[in-house]
Amino acid sequence: MTGMKRAVGIDIGGTKTAIGAVDVSGRIVARTSFPTEAGAGFDLALRRILEGIDRTLCEAGWSRRDLAGIGVGCPGPVNPTLGTIHNPYTLPTWNNCDIVSPLRAALGMPVFLENDADAALLGETFAGSARGCGKVVMITFGTGIGTAVLVNGRIYRGCRGEHPEMGHIPVEEGGPDCYCGRRGCFEAVASGEAIGAAGRAANLADSRAVFAAAAQGNTAARQVIDRALRATAIAAWTILHTFLPERIVLGGGIAEAHYELFAAPFRESVAAATMVPQSHITITRAQLGNDAGLVGAAALVFSDRSDRSV
Amino acid sequence: MTGMKRAVGIDIGGTKTAIGAVDVSGRIVARTSFPTEAGAGFDLALRRILEGIDRTLCEAGWSRRDLAGIGVGCPGPVNPTLGTIHNPYTLPTWNNCDIVSPLRAALGMPVFLENDADAALLGETFAGSARGCGKVVMITFGTGIGTAVLVNGRIYRGCRGEHPEMGHIPVEEGGPDCYCGRRGCFEAVASGEAIGAAGRAANLADSRAVFAAAAQGNTAARQVIDRALRATAIAAWTILHTFLPERIVLGGGIAEAHYELFAAPFRESVAAATMVPQSHITITRAQLGNDAGLVGAAALVFSDRSDRSV
Repeated sequence: MTGMKRAVGIDIGGTKTAIGAVDVSGRIVARTSFPTEAGAGFDLALRRILEGIDRTLCEAGWSRRDLAGIGVGCPGPVNPTLGTIHNPYTLPTWNNCDIVSPLRAALGMPVFLENDADAALLGETFAGSARGCGKVVMITFGTGIGTAVLVNGRIYRGCRGEHPEMGHIPVEEGGPDCYCGRRGCFEAVASGEAIGAAGRAANLADSRAVFAAAAQGNTAARQVIDRALRATAIAAWTILHTFLPERIVLGGGIAEAHYELFAAPFRESVAAATMVPQSHITITRAQLGNDAGLVGAAALVFSDRSDRSV
Repeated sequence: MTGMKRAVGIDIGGTKTAIGAVDVSGRIVARTSFPTEAGAGFDLALRRILEGIDRTLCEAGWSRRDLAGIGVGCPGPVNPTLGTIHNPYTLPTWNNCDIVSPLRAALGMPVFLENDADAALLGETFAGSARGCGKVVMITFGTGIGTAVLVNGRIYRGCRGEHPEMGHIPVEEGGPDCYCGRRGCFEAVASGEAIGAAGRAANLADSRAVFAAAAQGNTAARQVIDRALRATAIAAWTILHTFLPERIVLGGGIAEAHYELFAAPFRESVAAATMVPQSHITITRAQLGNDAGLVGAAALVFSDRSDRSV
């Protein structure tokens, strides 16, 4: 039975869609990608995905009947139970689109859907820096701040199946407005977008320019980064005393480029937090980079670790 | 089989121990209590507990063989998996004391141990204000601030089986020192002890005096309460965006006496939080009062909802 050892992972993004043939060790054997062009309609995207699956299988030297199933990761809101995507923000026109049923019908195999942040966490747990861990929080520092939580080996879901939004932990009284309805959220201070916005007030073009200027001693830039790191320390303390994970994985472009900077407030929080089992908590860098979502989508197939109860 | 419908719940406190004969509906049929006197030694306490169980059964008209088991709730640290209590703070001399094995040996039936905050939450879930809910956060406003979380019907545990300590959510930059290793924690601003300490600076004897003075328009007292409520609003926002519970239960002496005051910041947070399924989240008052721990301890027997995986 090779079938139980091979899967296809699909990572749908606002810009591009990546498809990979993934083996049970988490290795991507072959891959393809193409522009998502959500605005061109969901039906076209479905056709491209089916073509992409066949192209990837061909390149891998696998056939459809080798596959245990298909896993899909997609920017939320998605409903893993119903198999639907409803993300008018980054996938315009995809309103309550069922991606699971048509793929299942076309391919005759199990199809799983997961939020992209949760898929990335599953990837890191399956074949990356949190392998073998049961209780994991992953924080993705990118344009925004994404969070995902694994509890006893399964994706954590709250009320109505929604997943934690720890980018909205309040960290600063009277801080910048946040789209969530509050001010001074973690994301509103420490995300790439927030750092970029604060930098523009000091004539720095974007978050990359802020980090570069701070490294060269620019005071205004340093203040922006220090503020983001203070926010990170507060979020770290909160995460330690709420989910109490054994492992905290830092991913996303900003954490990748400035890992030591962002790991420090986490490490310092663990060292100072007397109420938690400090010596059993590890901070790590995400290992799979941009492939985490692809591998995690495939991992959905190998072991269904997505808690679907709502 | 009456056996599956009857249990004994034991609620060990720093001051007194309560024992109740509890039926499967959560009704306390008979009860007894006695001083815990932890300092007099664990063996004496065990003897008193065994006597108390028989006394309670006698009063209920039940016999030992009617029982499905015994549940024990106790102020932590406790280890539900090992069945041990290790709480030198409020139960002096009880250092790593195994309470489960001797009770099981003496009574020949299953015995379960749980942290008291978690037992109270199980009580409210089994027969109180969160009946039938799968995802619940309970916050106990008393001398300190206790928290417990139910996920998919089971007590949430983090790393090494520890339970969430949301009293240590940071809510105030540069706020009062907290014993946890940080400053400005929720508990350091909004607990009975914190309110009392802030009140003493204004010549008010304790938290009760602060609430009374605030109700009569005393400005200093109002400021203390307003500060506690601001802290509560931040903790509420954090809880909504981390655990995303469907129900938040407020218990403890202070929330009981001033429920509307403390429910307001939770309700306002739900109303403002656009990222969570607002209409599916309810704030409620704990219903069982001091009996929640007793009923919850018995509920451990009726359905083992304590997640023992670590």
